[in-house]
Amino acid sequence: MAARDFDALPRMPANHVPLTPTLFTERSAAAFPDRVAVIHGAQRFTWREHRDRCVRLASALARRGIGRGDTVAVLLPNTPAMVECHTGVPMSGAVLGAINTRLDAETIAYILDHGEAKLVIVDRELAPLLGAALALCTVRPPVIEVDDPEAPFPHTLGGEDYEALLASGDADFAWPLPADEWDAIALNYTSGTTGRPKGVVYHHRGAHLSAIGDILACQMAGPPTYLWTLPMFHCNGWCFPWVVAALSGTHVCLRAVRGPAMWEAIAAHRVTHMCGAPIVLATLLDMPGRPALAAPLRFMVAGAPPPEAVLAKAAEAGVQVVHIYGLTECYGPAVVNEWKPEDDALDGPARAALMARQGQRYVTLEALDVFGPGDTPVPADGTTMGEVVMRGNMVAKGYLKDLPATAKAFSGGWFRTGDLGVKHPDGSMQVRDRAKDIIISGGENISSIEVEDALYRHPAVAVAAVIAVPDDKWGEVPCAFVELRPDADATEAELLDFVRGRLARFKVPKRVVFGEVPKTSTGKLQKAKLREAARG
Amino acid sequence: MAARDFDALPRMPANHVPLTPTLFTERSAAAFPDRVAVIHGAQRFTWREHRDRCVRLASALARRGIGRGDTVAVLLPNTPAMVECHTGVPMSGAVLGAINTRLDAETIAYILDHGEAKLVIVDRELAPLLGAALALCTVRPPVIEVDDPEAPFPHTLGGEDYEALLASGDADFAWPLPADEWDAIALNYTSGTTGRPKGVVYHHRGAHLSAIGDILACQMAGPPTYLWTLPMFHCNGWCFPWVVAALSGTHVCLRAVRGPAMWEAIAAHRVTHMCGAPIVLATLLDMPGRPALAAPLRFMVAGAPPPEAVLAKAAEAGVQVVHIYGLTECYGPAVVNEWKPEDDALDGPARAALMARQGQRYVTLEALDVFGPGDTPVPADGTTMGEVVMRGNMVAKGYLKDLPATAKAFSGGWFRTGDLGVKHPDGSMQVRDRAKDIIISGGENISSIEVEDALYRHPAVAVAAVIAVPDDKWGEVPCAFVELRPDADATEAELLDFVRGRLARFKVPKRVVFGEVPKTSTGKLQKAKLREAARG
Repeated sequence: MAARDFDALPRMPANHVPLTPTLFTERSAAAFPDRVAVIHGAQRFTWREHRDRCVRLASALARRGIGRGDTVAVLLPNTPAMVECHTGVPMSGAVLGAINTRLDAETIAYILDHGEAKLVIVDRELAPLLGAALALCTVRPPVIEVDDPEAPFPHTLGGEDYEALLASGDADFAWPLPADEWDAIALNYTSGTTGRPKGVVYHHRGAHLSAIGDILACQMAGPPTYLWTLPMFHCNGWCFPWVVAALSGTHVCLRAVRGPAMWEAIAAHRVTHMCGAPIVLATLLDMPGRPALAAPLRFMVAGAPPPEAVLAKAAEAGVQVVHIYGLTECYGPAVVNEWKPEDDALDGPARAALMARQGQRYVTLEALDVFGPGDTPVPADGTTMGEVVMRGNMVAKGYLKDLPATAKAFSGGWFRTGDLGVKHPDGSMQVRDRAKDIIISGGENISSIEVEDALYRHPAVAVAAVIAVPDDKWGEVPCAFVELRPDADATEAELLDFVRGRLARFKVPKRVVFGEVPKTSTGKLQKAKLREAARG
Repeated sequence: MAARDFDALPRMPANHVPLTPTLFTERSAAAFPDRVAVIHGAQRFTWREHRDRCVRLASALARRGIGRGDTVAVLLPNTPAMVECHTGVPMSGAVLGAINTRLDAETIAYILDHGEAKLVIVDRELAPLLGAALALCTVRPPVIEVDDPEAPFPHTLGGEDYEALLASGDADFAWPLPADEWDAIALNYTSGTTGRPKGVVYHHRGAHLSAIGDILACQMAGPPTYLWTLPMFHCNGWCFPWVVAALSGTHVCLRAVRGPAMWEAIAAHRVTHMCGAPIVLATLLDMPGRPALAAPLRFMVAGAPPPEAVLAKAAEAGVQVVHIYGLTECYGPAVVNEWKPEDDALDGPARAALMARQGQRYVTLEALDVFGPGDTPVPADGTTMGEVVMRGNMVAKGYLKDLPATAKAFSGGWFRTGDLGVKHPDGSMQVRDRAKDIIISGGENISSIEVEDALYRHPAVAVAAVIAVPDDKWGEVPCAFVELRPDADATEAELLDFVRGRLARFKVPKRVVFGEVPKTSTGKLQKAKLREAARG
């Protein structure tokens, strides 16, 4: 029997190696030792130097007894140390826990305790925040301080200097490959809008394949010059630390995302790729007197669909926009709006409507669907809503120390995203709402995103957020929170009149509240806070 | 302990799916149903149609009881049926055995028997060859005949028509994913220059990752239009059937590789990518009166380094050349000459010398080295020779029904290529010779490739092959076989005088024999035949 003979050839060290993104850096250092890997202010590290710093970090951690399954927490902006931690920490076998630097001390304390941090690496600007968190938590991790010359207001907790830690490590350290590609590589906490944040565990295989998926989805060929505007503490920067390593490109670090600093970096280093929420793209394009692009620039946008006005400005500026979609549980983006060249001929509104779709699964996400009741796929009619579900190698291991939540979210062979969407006749998926954001009014579902889209079409509207508020008659009704553009003006009546022409009557908000809408660090609208405000 | 908690999250159907290139085609059909997937003469298949034909094929095979671990042998030129077999056969769980159509009937009979072919799919032009093979072998597989409208001289063995087979299948067949990504996907026989050919077994994981590796190495972004000049029976066309599927590109089929037909296809379909031996690139560039390129064309060359004259012509024609290297045992190419933009400034000979290096491991090959005695890596001095060794996920399962040969070639955690090479100070690898082609003269190693390179620099030399011949005094001495260019002339004395200025004295051939040099179907020089001739 041939089948038996085929099966008689087992995995061997020569032909089966755990997939891991750590080897990307080794390869880049071997192939392009003198190419610049990391730029930060006046600092430059070649791939050889960067690789040596990563391996020294791994070696220093190992010498301190930190290894497989230990969490190394980091509280860092987008600096060279943060890039190094993405390869150096996993090279030691440990798990990188990159913490959102905009969280409060109490939440950070919870995360340090929950992940059992064995060591914390902190930027000195953030030392006071870490100090406050350490005062609240149970674990007592040693602190390593990064003394970034670009950091404003550096403080110290008296911890060891990061450079001294690296100097104590050995660049010839024979760092261990993961015993199994299913081993944890990173721990990323969800925003925890409802209850405590959950610790999403990434593995080496998924991190490798997600980086590959990003490269294919964003049609990246050759070495990119990548500007770090997306925080690396969000889903490990959507895996782009590993994307840049796989392509032997150049990281351009940036501590703070502001228009002039972005344009300065773009011009100085001929930046080719960036990632971020639509708000970051808008900030980039809205800068008065911005220079012309010297090289083609591709911007990967996620978190919300890019509005028509932003797309128009991007086209005018020569910025290519790729709309991608994902969640913490799938290593950041795992779905891409596969743009067809023939759709370039569409007019602005039609382009924006098409670009608003989330699109198709990544090559490295093996299945994507939208399920109605009883896990039946919804028809591809562009209107029937269901829950977006995913299956594949870009879906995380699960939630740390929360097997019930893992079992629930990963049940029946699918990861349940909690996002509600539709399938269009062309096969693309579009998110209509988060399950918890949907408004149920008189038994009808209202997509908050659809109402927001209608508001966004008004030229005076800069930001729109629509939530459900209780209503005695209808159960729930939509309520809109609107930020107007700096030089624009509009009344509630004007806006309501405007959207009445564009929405079914029951979808028109009952009220418009003007003022600043609270946002997360990635520019996501914080509807939970609006709901609190509406309750008060 | 956090480590235990990380490990408590097991693989589940939602987050662990076997890697397999078959899903690439499903994705392309979902994302780009109406894009043309396959072009052949007047035929066109969209991705939806192509996907349906693949699934029908899988379904028809399953209905005949063919599945996991069964070999489906094919004897096909580069036609739509051949592309379909690369996805449809593995979708059934079976193993694709693509047989070199230029082999003799006896060898084909051996391959059919050794692989226990359960079914054979043959192009009608090749029916007589298959008929002769079937008369010699023990297995009695049913024959399916592809009636290609582009085929010259069609014959029949009375087998079922391929289109009838597809019609008997179901496009809604729920084809099974491989139970394990280590399951066999393809069976490719080595050329067997010494003894019987060996059956190299590929697995789903390796085929997936090799396709990804090709995409990264060849810097492919967006959908390619790929012209099939490399036979798909060579290492599954270096995995490019799966590359094109992963990128949702377009296959342009071609039965016979001739200059005018290639240029016609390039112009008609705006071809962007091709693969082949240097001889194919030379054929392309040497066509008198060839048209100008309408779109950028990238040519991936392997099998031998591209000669300087060919590189010069390619540059002049606007063809970008990528030099890659591999063997049947690593899914075709697994090493790439990573060209640095700054090296474009070099003059012709320096460029060709640098381009002749095989280069760096693919991102998806986890390790590449050159070993001297005792498996010690040779120094990176560009001169110390050793055996090229590889480790990683692009190394095949092993040799079918030959565990001793598998154990020998895959020993000590490395695949032993049998190629001799050096490492340069910049970290790149260069093959100096096949182990069996090295000439040992007076105790000194002579690289046959180095002597050939010196001969190639003479303007009259079209092809040069250097082998060892026995010598009473020196043990072995080099002997050169030379094909002159059509309109050129040179004497033995002239050539020897020419190379004396370029080689150490002991490396200069003792004799030059003029005449046609025998080549394999990929343009590789058949030195075994020259050795036979030299013995006679």
